[in-house]
Amino acid sequence: MKFKVKDMDLASGGPSIAILNQKDAEKLDLHPGDRILIKHNNHQTTCVLDISESRKAVAQGSIGLFEEVLDKLNVKHNSIVELKFTGKPDSVRHIRDKLYGKQLNDEELYHIIDDITNDRLTQIEKTYFVSAGFINGWSTDEIVGMTKAMVETGQRIKFGKVTLDKHCIGGVPNNRTTMIVIPIIAAAGFIIPKTSSRAITSPSGTADTMECLADVQMNERKIKQVVKKTGACIVHGGSMNLAPADDKIIEVEHPLSIDAEGQLLASVMAKKYSVSANYVLIDIPMGPEVKVKTKQEAAHLKKMFKLIGKKLGMHVNVIITDGSQPVGNGIGPLFEAEDVMSVLNNDPLAPEDLKKKSLFMAAELLSMTKHYNRRRAYKKVKEILDSGLALKKMNEIIKAQGKRKLPAVGEHRHPCKSSKEGKVVNINNKNISKIARIAGAPKDKGAGIYLNKKVGDRVKKGELLYTVYSESKFKLGLVKELLRTGNGYKVS
Amino acid sequence: MKFKVKDMDLASGGPSIAILNQKDAEKLDLHPGDRILIKHNNHQTTCVLDISESRKAVAQGSIGLFEEVLDKLNVKHNSIVELKFTGKPDSVRHIRDKLYGKQLNDEELYHIIDDITNDRLTQIEKTYFVSAGFINGWSTDEIVGMTKAMVETGQRIKFGKVTLDKHCIGGVPNNRTTMIVIPIIAAAGFIIPKTSSRAITSPSGTADTMECLADVQMNERKIKQVVKKTGACIVHGGSMNLAPADDKIIEVEHPLSIDAEGQLLASVMAKKYSVSANYVLIDIPMGPEVKVKTKQEAAHLKKMFKLIGKKLGMHVNVIITDGSQPVGNGIGPLFEAEDVMSVLNNDPLAPEDLKKKSLFMAAELLSMTKHYNRRRAYKKVKEILDSGLALKKMNEIIKAQGKRKLPAVGEHRHPCKSSKEGKVVNINNKNISKIARIAGAPKDKGAGIYLNKKVGDRVKKGELLYTVYSESKFKLGLVKELLRTGNGYKVS
Repeated sequence: MKFKVKDMDLASGGPSIAILNQKDAEKLDLHPGDRILIKHNNHQTTCVLDISESRKAVAQGSIGLFEEVLDKLNVKHNSIVELKFTGKPDSVRHIRDKLYGKQLNDEELYHIIDDITNDRLTQIEKTYFVSAGFINGWSTDEIVGMTKAMVETGQRIKFGKVTLDKHCIGGVPNNRTTMIVIPIIAAAGFIIPKTSSRAITSPSGTADTMECLADVQMNERKIKQVVKKTGACIVHGGSMNLAPADDKIIEVEHPLSIDAEGQLLASVMAKKYSVSANYVLIDIPMGPEVKVKTKQEAAHLKKMFKLIGKKLGMHVNVIITDGSQPVGNGIGPLFEAEDVMSVLNNDPLAPEDLKKKSLFMAAELLSMTKHYNRRRAYKKVKEILDSGLALKKMNEIIKAQGKRKLPAVGEHRHPCKSSKEGKVVNINNKNISKIARIAGAPKDKGAGIYLNKKVGDRVKKGELLYTVYSESKFKLGLVKELLRTGNGYKVS
Repeated sequence: MKFKVKDMDLASGGPSIAILNQKDAEKLDLHPGDRILIKHNNHQTTCVLDISESRKAVAQGSIGLFEEVLDKLNVKHNSIVELKFTGKPDSVRHIRDKLYGKQLNDEELYHIIDDITNDRLTQIEKTYFVSAGFINGWSTDEIVGMTKAMVETGQRIKFGKVTLDKHCIGGVPNNRTTMIVIPIIAAAGFIIPKTSSRAITSPSGTADTMECLADVQMNERKIKQVVKKTGACIVHGGSMNLAPADDKIIEVEHPLSIDAEGQLLASVMAKKYSVSANYVLIDIPMGPEVKVKTKQEAAHLKKMFKLIGKKLGMHVNVIITDGSQPVGNGIGPLFEAEDVMSVLNNDPLAPEDLKKKSLFMAAELLSMTKHYNRRRAYKKVKEILDSGLALKKMNEIIKAQGKRKLPAVGEHRHPCKSSKEGKVVNINNKNISKIARIAGAPKDKGAGIYLNKKVGDRVKKGELLYTVYSESKFKLGLVKELLRTGNGYKVS
């Protein structure tokens, strides 16, 4: 059957969507969510069907196509395309099996991950996949199968025979240890190509922070050049198509803030496996407002990371760290970059907690290689930082990636002061993050928060707790409105 | 904040959807799936947010609204509306709790069902709700709570102190016992207001079949008149807003053909509870291509129906019947209506299986009232049918609802003949249904199939198995194409 294309002027941001008029759909016994194959010249693509009840949106004889489909078929408004029937993908059957409690094999998991990667599943189908795994759980073999499938359906890069990496499962504002650990390890002579993410719900991701200092968006060829020259990189992984299914799964986890353990494990391990890392240090922050809340949970996750690592032929070490408050003083891309550079500069006012944690992590990672025991590893990383070698390496990395001019600090400011005297007993990570985001972070690089007090510090009534910076008066107004419901600090 | 309305010229068919330009969304730290409150004069409504990456679809300063939202707010293209922040509904938290295995109380279930009824949940959130219940299971108390919530968030109608009803959980083509049982029971002097559904994936629902004979779309006032006059009705429940959450839940079950037991129980019982039925007979067909496949499943479902009924103060009886092949000879609205009328007319060529099953069911239902024991009940219903009283009552119901002229039989026909001699050992319900649907049923009333052979019948090579009827040559062409992959009969 032939249909005339209507350019819907809409992007789904995910599945390839085509819309038929209800009358045409009835004639062909097609329903919302059914798959149809659309052909035009040498191009063809499978679309998920939506139905339009009104003639206005899509008339009979027409087919409404979203931007993703127009691009794939290389067609325009009023082009004529051919429609063919096609059944639901096999992966839908496998998802159904998982809902019924069946354990999936590698091939079945590959089908599902491949269809997710190529946008052949609807949001509803992906949600069933995530919830089935969340409730019924994933076996170790399934997680390994899922990890491999995520890697195989994306790009894979090999850097060196020994490649180090680190990862933090997140939730703690600032905590920019990566940007200190990477130059230290590279200065010690090891290869450590770090692909980082941008913030989704946090005030800044490592990629957002690094971008204040250097370019982070680059292709595989450029990344290889940087790593060859400096032994390291700190770039945005998103532009490299590493384990692309991962982000598409996170999309449906986000609305319910689901943290399915199996998904988390596969997500982290797939990103590391994609860059052929074989010595990986994982940081699990623990605290009341981060993913992992208890020692038991942390110990279990640690065991699982090591087990999955072993099955994938990777050496994995896991540390459990304090996730109860921000690490460092600045929150937001620019403020975090300044914290990092002050540590690398051996600035006496550099945040002590960030420095201490970074040194500990660098030593742990170094000792994994068996070239150093823990004590000697710590001595080595301390020397590298103190001597300025780490700073020198960071400047090399920045130059190789493409140095950027530091953005300006947000010119609109609001001081947040203590309403009483006492000791800071708690800083709520989530509230502080929300304030920094409303102020404009991470899109506005110079927006964020500078903390003057941390947990344990004494404050007087009226003393400054932190300052909020924003690039826009409007956004600072929204922050002031938000602060009326609480400032994230508990003083008593 | 104020935004200018863009009429998106699209209907979601479900959630109230509003679209902001990505830049505006970033400024306000809003994400896809977030809730926003939109106000205009005295109207306001909560919408689910979508983001447009392109300026073409929704420009900065504009807000794209779907038809559902335009109607609720009573606004037009270029109207100015106000946007306010609003958090996720509480029900999302309850759904999350259910995913984590928590048992929900009546109030929490009410929140969820109320938000589903009022389109305040996204497809993803609804899918989590269904899958959490499907995998973790619903307790009896939760099912009762869900049933009550479905009834309370819809319309409830009271007919009489003693109100009878029947329900079949479906899956068997034709099987139009309702249209024979209802007039028999009404002729026996009982009140039995039957609200039926239209086909979703089957070739005809009772409402579609009845519509060949009489109007089925009517409001509450008219239905009450019909029941007052005749003691019964056979109408479409969809127009009455009975347990409206049910259809909205089925929407997300459909893509994976999930039949969550708890959902099925709540769905059926809510529809009965909404019409204040207190004597209910439930038909569970069992067979390889219907919902219930084994005796164990059937027995369990039977127990659950009776238990839920008891907790709701309803007398429930459950029969387990043969669901292995179609009941009756015709498939499709007109052919099924003709089967029904031939039984009521005591036509010697009327399908014996349909007649026998209807008499059995009518007797079971009658004996539930305690006015008759089983033997006397059977004698009574047989008398009512044989004497023509059932036909007379059916004609009264048809007249009261509004008699319709019988539609014409589809003029395009295709005979399907046996390719060998032997005995019919199987008729595949799903294949036969698909053929009838492709032929045009249920939208084209005169489209469908007339079966000449049933399971157990002997056939010669070249002898007619069935005839397919269609109102369009095009659709009959599609049927012929489909028949090449199999005709649904097994002869050996």
